[in-house]
Amino acid sequence: MNPTVKEYIEKNRERYVEELVSWLKIPSISTLSEHSGDVRDAAVWAENKLKEIGFPRVELIEGKGHPLVYAEWLEQENQPTILFYGHYDVQPVDPLGEWHQGPFDPYIDEGNVYARGATDDKGQVMVVLAALEAWAQIEGKLPVNVKVLLEGEEEAGGAFVEQFVHENGEQLKADGALICDTHMNSIEQPSLICGLRGILYTEIHVRGAASDLHSGSYGGVAPNPLHALCLLVSRLKGEDGRIDIPGIYISSVQVTEEERRFWESNREPLQRRLLKEMGVKELVGENHILPHKRLGIRPTLEVHGIRGGFTGEGAKTVIPAEALAKISIRLPAGLKPDDVFLRFEKAVQQKMPKGYSVEVRNLHGGAGVSVSPDNPYVEAAAAAVEQSYGIRPVFMREGGSIPIASLFHELLGVPVVLMGFGLPEDGAHGPNEKFSLSQLYNGIHTVADYLGRLQK
Amino acid sequence: MNPTVKEYIEKNRERYVEELVSWLKIPSISTLSEHSGDVRDAAVWAENKLKEIGFPRVELIEGKGHPLVYAEWLEQENQPTILFYGHYDVQPVDPLGEWHQGPFDPYIDEGNVYARGATDDKGQVMVVLAALEAWAQIEGKLPVNVKVLLEGEEEAGGAFVEQFVHENGEQLKADGALICDTHMNSIEQPSLICGLRGILYTEIHVRGAASDLHSGSYGGVAPNPLHALCLLVSRLKGEDGRIDIPGIYISSVQVTEEERRFWESNREPLQRRLLKEMGVKELVGENHILPHKRLGIRPTLEVHGIRGGFTGEGAKTVIPAEALAKISIRLPAGLKPDDVFLRFEKAVQQKMPKGYSVEVRNLHGGAGVSVSPDNPYVEAAAAAVEQSYGIRPVFMREGGSIPIASLFHELLGVPVVLMGFGLPEDGAHGPNEKFSLSQLYNGIHTVADYLGRLQK
Repeated sequence: MNPTVKEYIEKNRERYVEELVSWLKIPSISTLSEHSGDVRDAAVWAENKLKEIGFPRVELIEGKGHPLVYAEWLEQENQPTILFYGHYDVQPVDPLGEWHQGPFDPYIDEGNVYARGATDDKGQVMVVLAALEAWAQIEGKLPVNVKVLLEGEEEAGGAFVEQFVHENGEQLKADGALICDTHMNSIEQPSLICGLRGILYTEIHVRGAASDLHSGSYGGVAPNPLHALCLLVSRLKGEDGRIDIPGIYISSVQVTEEERRFWESNREPLQRRLLKEMGVKELVGENHILPHKRLGIRPTLEVHGIRGGFTGEGAKTVIPAEALAKISIRLPAGLKPDDVFLRFEKAVQQKMPKGYSVEVRNLHGGAGVSVSPDNPYVEAAAAAVEQSYGIRPVFMREGGSIPIASLFHELLGVPVVLMGFGLPEDGAHGPNEKFSLSQLYNGIHTVADYLGRLQK
Repeated sequence: MNPTVKEYIEKNRERYVEELVSWLKIPSISTLSEHSGDVRDAAVWAENKLKEIGFPRVELIEGKGHPLVYAEWLEQENQPTILFYGHYDVQPVDPLGEWHQGPFDPYIDEGNVYARGATDDKGQVMVVLAALEAWAQIEGKLPVNVKVLLEGEEEAGGAFVEQFVHENGEQLKADGALICDTHMNSIEQPSLICGLRGILYTEIHVRGAASDLHSGSYGGVAPNPLHALCLLVSRLKGEDGRIDIPGIYISSVQVTEEERRFWESNREPLQRRLLKEMGVKELVGENHILPHKRLGIRPTLEVHGIRGGFTGEGAKTVIPAEALAKISIRLPAGLKPDDVFLRFEKAVQQKMPKGYSVEVRNLHGGAGVSVSPDNPYVEAAAAAVEQSYGIRPVFMREGGSIPIASLFHELLGVPVVLMGFGLPEDGAHGPNEKFSLSQLYNGIHTVADYLGRLQK
């Protein structure tokens, strides 16, 4: 990497922290309307920072929700274009009582900066902004063409950015996408995310009698939609975690030998971490399968809620006329949510007990992502991480869906590099969220190096 | 029966209706606090009526809820004492829009009086008051000793009357109890109730992880208490309606040959009625067993509600840390709720999937009732019904619990005669509740005759 860029970064370490702290002070909670002014302030902060870096085009894009911040610097005719995504909004702060200091009153303790948004995602966006700034300051330009898209609704559904990406494919066109909004395995064993599960979210509506019934008068002959849902769910997924939907285990995800070896050698540490994080004594589900695989590429079926009947205090002997279950299926990359919905719907119809009518609704879906490790944008990322951390990163998968990653993957058709610098112990979404300063510095070096490596 | 009593009843038919209408006009909805004055007015109406009949002791008993009306006329030294129970409170009136006329604006149409409370239970209490009045007017006294206990919280849990019965066993001591708060099979085939199921109402609390989890990050390894409840419920009761709790099918209820024959010969009409009332095409559950048996003396297990996770609009991918199910079991007479609770708790512990903690709570219970048809108080009731209707009544069972009947049965140790004059089509609890005037008149004759038959 350009040694003067590296030097610049080293010299400016303290200022990066100061700037991040000033951004973290803005309580940009996107789900709470009383904070919409703050969310906007956080967007303006990013807008100003991008202008200061030297981006010739910087815009606040207004729409139906919180604004998007868009910037581009496209003066390198023969260089590729990289699209960077991040978000400047943050999660709510409940439970407030568990914070050691105010969530928007950042402080440094033992090499970490504590505040809501420290790791998710202001700290990680700062990593990229600082790397861009270093190149701009030293070279007067960026090594490649860069587009920046920051949203303010990631923690609130991201409807506006989704619409924007759908409608502005041409503007966002790029050769590769970089997202810094995940975490790595550990400092000792850094990782890159090469896959995300997709999701299908459904509702199952079951109807029995024409109206609610009294269990004294009709119990023994009446349909009970809650009981039917219990029977149905138990038939869709057993205690062994096996999902009984034809085709659900057919996936096109290619797992490298290297990745598989990592799963095996890290089974115990992951298991320990999961048990600790969940506060349980044993894992539940497909216990004969490696946990990395279960979380990364196995489909799962979860009941998120069952509605119907009476759930207040005390006793009511109602047999409800209808009930619904909210059920999602996480999908390995390669399974299309709409296809799976049809299979799911059919399985539900077949497994429903007799005497009920059932309707299955497709609430939303998003495909999974699987990026091949031998893609040049991913290879460059792995090389940059190895350069900074002194060890080759492992490729890991996240069990959750990152809708923007799927959108970039599907709509823009670009390889998505998920380069996260958060650590599992950073507590994103929880009280006392933090970001490690060494990860901030390492991150800046890594991204700066990465940008240089993309240069032709 | 005393012919002049009969004559008196015939002469006063119109006045009975007028008096009933004046009582029905009082909106004594016990569950709505804004109607507590009305509930009291309805109690005072009954108090005045009992005084007018000539009861030497009439009291409004105040306590923690709506008042009880108590009256006694105990001047027949060598005669038995009969305790009559009824209630003067009524159900709420929702959905109001479905009433053809105001629920407290009674009207007569085609031989029925329409109003909230017409059949449940003011109309049926009126039956007894009129019969008592007829005896008192003609003979100057009643044929037997009579105690009357009317409550104003039957539709609101009946906590006060329960406490009162527990604490005043001596005052309520009687040889037989009469309750007119049920319905008969039909005018063509009158019936008496000889059995009620008991109930055990429970909550099952299931805990998985220490806190709610995100299904993306943990789906595939995490315990999901909602899924565990579905598995558990499906193991407690199958699609065939069979309950898998050891001992639950052991019952001491004696079914007479006559009753069994009635079940068989009336299978089709009951089935048709149930399908129509429930608005379904088939019965659900133990379809190889006669419906009268399934509703009358078979235990049933019903899920009334499942709480936990997310059931609002839209999608939330939460794996809840805990969930609860409300489950009741209807019990044939002879099974003690507390014994069944222990068996149920054990079955739950055994059937719970691995990886969860579970707690079973006993919310409340009440034993079933089974009255032998050859008890003299029941025999007299059957004879009185046969006298009025020209056909011997069948003995039937109700699937629901009538807590006061169980209380009288258990605490006072008296045979409970459940002589109902409501008809299945009267729509108690629904809009346009009605009471047939011919049932009112037949009822008065029947009860007057019954009182005469109890005389030694």
